[in-house]
Amino acid sequence: MDYPDALNNLIETFMRYPGVGRKTAERYALYTISSFKDEDYEAFRTTLERVENEIKPCETCGHLTDRGICPICRDPSRDASKILVVEESRDVIVIEKTRTYDGLYHVLGGVLSPSNGVGPEELSIKPLLERLKNDEHKELILATNLSDEGETTALYLQRLLKDIDILITRIAYGMPAGGNIGYADEITLNKALEGRKKL
Amino acid sequence: MDYPDALNNLIETFMRYPGVGRKTAERYALYTISSFKDEDYEAFRTTLERVENEIKPCETCGHLTDRGICPICRDPSRDASKILVVEESRDVIVIEKTRTYDGLYHVLGGVLSPSNGVGPEELSIKPLLERLKNDEHKELILATNLSDEGETTALYLQRLLKDIDILITRIAYGMPAGGNIGYADEITLNKALEGRKKL
Repeated sequence: MDYPDALNNLIETFMRYPGVGRKTAERYALYTISSFKDEDYEAFRTTLERVENEIKPCETCGHLTDRGICPICRDPSRDASKILVVEESRDVIVIEKTRTYDGLYHVLGGVLSPSNGVGPEELSIKPLLERLKNDEHKELILATNLSDEGETTALYLQRLLKDIDILITRIAYGMPAGGNIGYADEITLNKALEGRKKL
Repeated sequence: MDYPDALNNLIETFMRYPGVGRKTAERYALYTISSFKDEDYEAFRTTLERVENEIKPCETCGHLTDRGICPICRDPSRDASKILVVEESRDVIVIEKTRTYDGLYHVLGGVLSPSNGVGPEELSIKPLLERLKNDEHKELILATNLSDEGETTALYLQRLLKDIDILITRIAYGMPAGGNIGYADEITLNKALEGRKKL
């Protein structure tokens, strides 16, 4: 005794998503059946179709967009002297929400991870090198995450770009707001101490 | 600055699901874009269409099926003298996996919850009363969850059926396997004590 075929397919589709195990996938599938009306199914299918067809990485920076070149790259008021390098499109959205950064972005589309088969070729590194041929960019800010892979990726980029005449910086890492030193992990504490400033 | 339109729609679709907040929905949507190939989008849409068109509650017991009458109700080897009343289709699947129950089921499709607008009319209670007109059913086993709403629903059914000539029982509630009495909640402990047996 198992779920009917189509329902099983839906459960297995949900199980593909990160962090979704069988129980959660079952919950999502049963929720779909109990709460979706005809127009909801129709809307979900249309959305999937639109995402498939419309959403592409920005031809310049790699940020997801539905317009070829993303609104940030097209905005003449952005400070083109700075390029902030992030792992994912989501990072761009989060940083934009802070309204503290007015430069451009470059989305790598991941981090170097040899064990997962992600080498430099899999990331948007060549397009970055192309962009840096333009003299108007003066500073490249590396904002990969504080993880083994994020660190490796930042180090890789730093070495790769050492002969290019551009200022390379890295964002600060340390204790986050609301973080409790007693519960902080070793790497964060290490970075917090390393980055200490004279008062 | 926000996600492109179609991507936002996908995020909002995922946010409809129970326990899915904005961050998780964003993760799912970005995962879709980064890992789905054309055939995956197509398969997802087809699955949604099939679920919409094929999956319906069993005409007899309410368990989700793609065949009008579910395989359990159609199975002549099942013991028709017992009907086990559960909240959801998922409960049927879980109980079937134990292979300890050989009777029939009745899926209510939820629990009484006046604050959420769920009254007796919203549950599969009338079809249950119809089924009980058949003399071959001798025992009705109430297996709603041990929650305020599950208890209320069981009590409601018990009262509703008090004049019908059928044995009404309730499954046992108490400490689960692996449960730690020191961390158990009050209701479970209460049920465990109430249901104690002479050794």
